[in-house]
Amino acid sequence: MPQEIAPLAQLAEQFGRLPGIGRKSAQRLAYYVLNLPEDEAKAFAEAIVNARQNVRRCALCCDLTDGELCAVCRAANRDASILCVVEDPRDVMAVERTREYRGLYHVLHGVISPLNGVGPEHLCVKELLRRFEDGLVEEVIMATNPTVEGEATAMYLSRLLKPLGVRVTRLAYGVPVGADLEYADEVTLSRALEGRREI
Amino acid sequence: MPQEIAPLAQLAEQFGRLPGIGRKSAQRLAYYVLNLPEDEAKAFAEAIVNARQNVRRCALCCDLTDGELCAVCRAANRDASILCVVEDPRDVMAVERTREYRGLYHVLHGVISPLNGVGPEHLCVKELLRRFEDGLVEEVIMATNPTVEGEATAMYLSRLLKPLGVRVTRLAYGVPVGADLEYADEVTLSRALEGRREI
Repeated sequence: MPQEIAPLAQLAEQFGRLPGIGRKSAQRLAYYVLNLPEDEAKAFAEAIVNARQNVRRCALCCDLTDGELCAVCRAANRDASILCVVEDPRDVMAVERTREYRGLYHVLHGVISPLNGVGPEHLCVKELLRRFEDGLVEEVIMATNPTVEGEATAMYLSRLLKPLGVRVTRLAYGVPVGADLEYADEVTLSRALEGRREI
Repeated sequence: MPQEIAPLAQLAEQFGRLPGIGRKSAQRLAYYVLNLPEDEAKAFAEAIVNARQNVRRCALCCDLTDGELCAVCRAANRDASILCVVEDPRDVMAVERTREYRGLYHVLHGVISPLNGVGPEHLCVKELLRRFEDGLVEEVIMATNPTVEGEATAMYLSRLLKPLGVRVTRLAYGVPVGADLEYADEVTLSRALEGRREI
């Protein structure tokens, strides 16, 4: 049997823990690192520690940032009367890419999922409620994913927020632009019919 | 546009340089690292530096090792009269998994590939020739990959080694065990016919 080289096996094991990296890929990545120039391997290691230590959650919206506040919360030209609630920092980027939305965000860092033991206390809900204390927010757009759990989370939060006198909306459901009706699932299509608008 | 968080973007860039990791995967891996406990992130970074610094080439066979000699070269019970020449440390593991081979190895760390600017001087050929100085080696098995470049490398080396009075052999070509003849390519199949043996 091949005898293991401990530092190599340890590195492959570390890579193997990453999501979507199997045993074979992990080994391939570990070999790749061995062939890097030493300063590049060090830079890689430093990037890991640096990102882990210096990226934290924005004190207002819980999005990721390397400062006290994230870039959106720091910006002077955003509309503080609208909050868009998303599950994940990547969802903020997705909405920003539309270049349409000028309001602020709130990142939950997950969804309520009783099966996985995730309750509201594990999400940034406390921080969300705190944002209504100054009475500036008029509308909250629930932009959690259109999944069962995203839906349930949106419902849960809207029930918390409505008593505060704030307008709660949800992203529109419908057929994705550029898609083929033939391949649309029936739930999406019936939601698209339901939400039809005059042209 | 989403404003970049520098340490996160740098980490994603590092992951993106790894072979087989695209931009989206690199981002996903970077986010994963952010959510690791701090000591695990540090252990990951240390594994990279540790592997890069402590894994070197065996002084005899050029396989990877964390010592002076690799486990196979150190072992007392291997047959020093046979050398198996492979391209890559992973090929050593593949041959070891057969549990049939009891000889020693020599790892070239690549193949001759003029198109990629790789000549014999970039491979562990000098180290290979040094192994015939004591006259112990009687047979060299060329176990480079059955590709054009692996083939050319095996031919090149056999021309170097034959004048030393050593027997040079090549792995047998043929249909892989468990495969379907229907899907065998014609080159493999004609090699299998050519190399047919009495049963």
